[in-house]
Amino acid sequence: MDIDEETIDLRSDTVTTPSDEMREAARDAEVGDDVYRDDPTVNELERRAAEAVGTEAAIYVPSGTMANQIAVHVHTDPGQELLLELESHIYRWELAGAAKLSSAQTRTIDAGDRCVPTPDAVAEGLVTEDLHRPGTGLLSLENTHNYRGGVAVPVDEMAAAAEVASDADVPVHLDGARLFNAAVALGVDASEVVDPVDSVTFCLSKGLGAPVGSILAGDEQFIEAARRVRKLFGGGMRQAGMIAAPGLLALENVDRLADDHANAERLAAGLNALDGVDAPAPDTNIVVAHTDEAGIPAADLVEACKAAGVGCVEFDEHATRFTTHRGVDDGDVDDAVERIGDAVAELSA
Amino acid sequence: MDIDEETIDLRSDTVTTPSDEMREAARDAEVGDDVYRDDPTVNELERRAAEAVGTEAAIYVPSGTMANQIAVHVHTDPGQELLLELESHIYRWELAGAAKLSSAQTRTIDAGDRCVPTPDAVAEGLVTEDLHRPGTGLLSLENTHNYRGGVAVPVDEMAAAAEVASDADVPVHLDGARLFNAAVALGVDASEVVDPVDSVTFCLSKGLGAPVGSILAGDEQFIEAARRVRKLFGGGMRQAGMIAAPGLLALENVDRLADDHANAERLAAGLNALDGVDAPAPDTNIVVAHTDEAGIPAADLVEACKAAGVGCVEFDEHATRFTTHRGVDDGDVDDAVERIGDAVAELSA
Amino acid sequence: MDIDEETIDLRSDTVTTPSDEMREAARDAEVGDDVYRDDPTVNELERRAAEAVGTEAAIYVPSGTMANQIAVHVHTDPGQELLLELESHIYRWELAGAAKLSSAQTRTIDAGDRCVPTPDAVAEGLVTEDLHRPGTGLLSLENTHNYRGGVAVPVDEMAAAAEVASDADVPVHLDGARLFNAAVALGVDASEVVDPVDSVTFCLSKGLGAPVGSILAGDEQFIEAARRVRKLFGGGMRQAGMIAAPGLLALENVDRLADDHANAERLAAGLNALDGVDAPAPDTNIVVAHTDEAGIPAADLVEACKAAGVGCVEFDEHATRFTTHRGVDDGDVDDAVERIGDAVAELSA
Amino acid sequence: MDIDEETIDLRSDTVTTPSDEMREAARDAEVGDDVYRDDPTVNELERRAAEAVGTEAAIYVPSGTMANQIAVHVHTDPGQELLLELESHIYRWELAGAAKLSSAQTRTIDAGDRCVPTPDAVAEGLVTEDLHRPGTGLLSLENTHNYRGGVAVPVDEMAAAAEVASDADVPVHLDGARLFNAAVALGVDASEVVDPVDSVTFCLSKGLGAPVGSILAGDEQFIEAARRVRKLFGGGMRQAGMIAAPGLLALENVDRLADDHANAERLAAGLNALDGVDAPAPDTNIVVAHTDEAGIPAADLVEACKAAGVGCVEFDEHATRFTTHRGVDDGDVDDAVERIGDAVAELSA
Repeated sequence: MDIDEETIDLRSDTVTTPSDEMREAARDAEVGDDVYRDDPTVNELERRAAEAVGTEAAIYVPSGTMANQIAVHVHTDPGQELLLELESHIYRWELAGAAKLSSAQTRTIDAGDRCVPTPDAVAEGLVTEDLHRPGTGLLSLENTHNYRGGVAVPVDEMAAAAEVASDADVPVHLDGARLFNAAVALGVDASEVVDPVDSVTFCLSKGLGAPVGSILAGDEQFIEAARRVRKLFGGGMRQAGMIAAPGLLALENVDRLADDHANAERLAAGLNALDGVDAPAPDTNIVVAHTDEAGIPAADLVEACKAAGVGCVEFDEHATRFTTHRGVDDGDVDDAVERIGDAVAELSA
Repeated sequence: MDIDEETIDLRSDTVTTPSDEMREAARDAEVGDDVYRDDPTVNELERRAAEAVGTEAAIYVPSGTMANQIAVHVHTDPGQELLLELESHIYRWELAGAAKLSSAQTRTIDAGDRCVPTPDAVAEGLVTEDLHRPGTGLLSLENTHNYRGGVAVPVDEMAAAAEVASDADVPVHLDGARLFNAAVALGVDASEVVDPVDSVTFCLSKGLGAPVGSILAGDEQFIEAARRVRKLFGGGMRQAGMIAAPGLLALENVDRLADDHANAERLAAGLNALDGVDAPAPDTNIVVAHTDEAGIPAADLVEACKAAGVGCVEFDEHATRFTTHRGVDDGDVDDAVERIGDAVAELSA
Repeated sequence: MDIDEETIDLRSDTVTTPSDEMREAARDAEVGDDVYRDDPTVNELERRAAEAVGTEAAIYVPSGTMANQIAVHVHTDPGQELLLELESHIYRWELAGAAKLSSAQTRTIDAGDRCVPTPDAVAEGLVTEDLHRPGTGLLSLENTHNYRGGVAVPVDEMAAAAEVASDADVPVHLDGARLFNAAVALGVDASEVVDPVDSVTFCLSKGLGAPVGSILAGDEQFIEAARRVRKLFGGGMRQAGMIAAPGLLALENVDRLADDHANAERLAAGLNALDGVDAPAPDTNIVVAHTDEAGIPAADLVEACKAAGVGCVEFDEHATRFTTHRGVDDGDVDDAVERIGDAVAELSA
Repeated sequence: MDIDEETIDLRSDTVTTPSDEMREAARDAEVGDDVYRDDPTVNELERRAAEAVGTEAAIYVPSGTMANQIAVHVHTDPGQELLLELESHIYRWELAGAAKLSSAQTRTIDAGDRCVPTPDAVAEGLVTEDLHRPGTGLLSLENTHNYRGGVAVPVDEMAAAAEVASDADVPVHLDGARLFNAAVALGVDASEVVDPVDSVTFCLSKGLGAPVGSILAGDEQFIEAARRVRKLFGGGMRQAGMIAAPGLLALENVDRLADDHANAERLAAGLNALDGVDAPAPDTNIVVAHTDEAGIPAADLVEACKAAGVGCVEFDEHATRFTTHRGVDDGDVDDAVERIGDAVAELSA
């Protein structure tokens, strides 16, 4: 996509560009060779990130996908099952990495709008190893749940699902790419969200605004193993302190996520007012607009919005995703609603 | 399990022992080294098997699992998706072979009692390859459907599902471990059942009564590729004519499957008459007895039946499978019902 | 290849057809479903096979390739190294199974005519796991060594190589496809050859004359794990007693291997007498004829021999393999030498 | 390692920290979301990198390991062979990634001090696919050759090896982690070194001095496929322009590599003058000191050097690597020689 300056880019919170403060931090970062563990800024980021989510240790990686795939690799033995939600990112958008990189068989639970499987569904999904059946090696949860609309899953529901797995000695991973959005929306500390699980991914590069990188956190033994798998996957970087420094500032951006959520609510309200558009009130910063009623295919809406100066992405045949972030304020939201309204009107004509 | 002579063994139709005629055929088989393709009996079996299911070619392999896994390997590229029914054998009981041997990501459809996915479900399950998503490489169907009770899926329902995949240039495999049971139950020729698909597995060693081996059939190019994968998986055998010879006789055992079906119907009727037992009338030779109502766990029933002289297997918490086959006649079925009745009575007491 | 009755087939000892006694044994075998471990003949074969090589346990599989690949799978973790001889069967002729089925990285040692790596070569080849390097998971040896001419490796040389690995806690596997040929040639019991290693493959279907199958032997825990991997690879068979029964008789065929060795020696002497042909005196039943001097490509020699009524296989550009076996006596050898002599003469003309 | 300010760090050229100019460039970089291909700085870097090595296209990745492993993945089919030098980085130090991530079987050629296999060795190493053998999928070369001492392989020798593969329709990859060191040492343009191969890896983060990242270059179709595999491996980054900007400056650092080479020569001369130390004159920036004669284990020398204020790494039992780079001038080299001399003297005492 060619995004010009006039466009209000709501495709993703991954489009946020670093703040001036982050740019200065990158310039001034104290660095070293992180493969030798000599980069003080990376070391500091890993320490601070673990602290922020309440785990023993953490490791900095180039992307959320790598964080998730390392977790799958470390937790499972080849040929075990990975139990996860039907529309979870790991299953849907990571190029079958679980099968390719870890030889894990996926078993999915359709949790619907609940986003997190019920304890019963987890119990039913767990498989005990025998001569014919692979055992379950990992349960993976997602919070906020991206595809289902940035839903913030209540901690007790997550904990109930995780407990069933833990009781069966099956480890639990949380894909918390937008973990802090969940924490802010739920009004709890991120560490409370992470408490029921054994490992967690979160991205520094989405709403928190860092240019590059994600964190995988867990206990020390897990992170030690993850360090080797990161090398295998090609995620070992050198003077990574230059991007870890903005990452450190990103960790201080948690409170500002409330603004994104407010803007998303404002956006949803605006879209809901459009004829034939259904945009449920969002939990966090992701708004999904359904245009079944208007008979507008998402692909057409994305095109029309682009022409009208709004970036968004197709999510399903009649579902389009709009994401708020640091680069968008309430005025932009109002402008966006107006432009989207024009696009919808034109397509409905 | 120690099965003594007195036991009526209904654990599986895989327990059938070869007929005297098959034993003679094994003794007298003309053989050669099949890895060099010099075994005339294997060559004849492969020709006759292909003919029986209406494909260009076929290959003889040691087991149904190997036939299925070769099919997955040949049809898919690593990292593609394998679309199949939730309770299908390939997904449930083949040790995650699709992920381990072929790096395929499984996507399941819960077809319930229908056993074959609806065309809509197939359409929804097909994934188009893009930068984030693996494409679908194979749709796999199963007929009869083992876990759901030996259900014979109507050919038009299979064809409707297969057509959706074929229209999207996705090949279709049929796990027809009990293909001929399906054909007999549906009153059609096996080749009609196979017609909608690109490749098919069927077992010579179940109701057809051969001691060892299964067939994978498809077009010539597919079977040529399968020959190499069979070698990779360790399924290349030498003077296999000795077991192919009984396999040739097994191909003539199709009509007798009707007896197994009649016996299964008789068995289900008998079990249904027991208090607290629900055994739906079977399509083919598999009877599943549900003992939820009686509050009898399947594990207990299997134990009690064994003590009473009936072999059966646990299928689910309160579901037990009984399978009829060549080694069991109507008198045995009546005896078995009596013994099972005793076991149920004792457990209900 | 179309092998007619007149042809003296020296392509491989895998071409041997079962004796009448074996055919009778197959017909009369007591059988059951081996996947349920109910086949008494298979159970007996596994017991006797373990006894014959001095291990705790054994498992019957469809091919030597499967036996080897199961061993690699059980002994190694994905991403570890498999250390083995450059021209070993596992590396050369098993379709990269170690990489495909077990994600093992192969490290080869060129042992030359010695066939077994020196202790120093093993020591140099062992890799210690660190952040950048996979550790060694398995050392695999081969005896007799097929590609290098059926060489019987002295037990003390095998033991010396194995000891280096064992001292480093690296398990050792022996591909003894022709283990008993080695034992006979070395004048020791097979169990002595197996003594230095942790697991061993041997084929019932080569010089021992059984129609189908190989044995993987080791300690009980190893064989228990192997049973599951056999299922994964599709090697679980049903009434396998019908082929296990000839296998039991094959175990009694050890002494007759001396005849094959004598015939091979006679054959090599005959070939050596031909102009431009160099056929070193063999240890066992494999004769490799080098025709560099005569300037005859092996491919041409194989063709000419076939026309003259002798089956053989191309081994290298100017190396052709002839194998003696139960189906060939000294008269056949003399006939074969004459025919090969004609072929060579014609090609040299 | 705790590296203090006083230490002369010769462990690797990966320890170089970015220049002030690079830091400013990072701060001021124009960025966007590179997963959407919206980052103008990354796009510019990829364009300029391709230009620098004379290929159609290029892609920016987090590490040289990822660049190499993507190349293996794109070029080979699972189960094919990867032919490469015994001591090459891909084989030795990438955690068996070829087997784990691409199911490739490795075949090694020991090229000794020549570093690049002879055409004959390549010809012998190529395997043609048949029923038993995997074919060769890729030949990989390395220039400069790291483990063998930063050797710059003459272009005609590389070309001769590559030609044999190309003639057999086998693609050729070059691990040119230090490609520009090779080009400078050979006195040719980098594009000449790349000319004989189909794809090339080079690192921005070694002698060129960028903080993070490597380039994989090749034709457009190859790079398109690589983009998808990068996502699979978790190498898709967001506002990567912040590290791509220093990478652009790194491309202008080629000429300064001559200084590193001169310093390495000065260092080798100094070390050679020490009793019992053999340090061959280097081609580029890597000096390997052999201490067999002095009887000093490399592990001890590394420890003693560290205590004396010089960073270096153990390469083999009696071989220690010292690497020159942007952070070290001729004065530092002289100081280092003095300190290493003290360490050697102490250890020899």
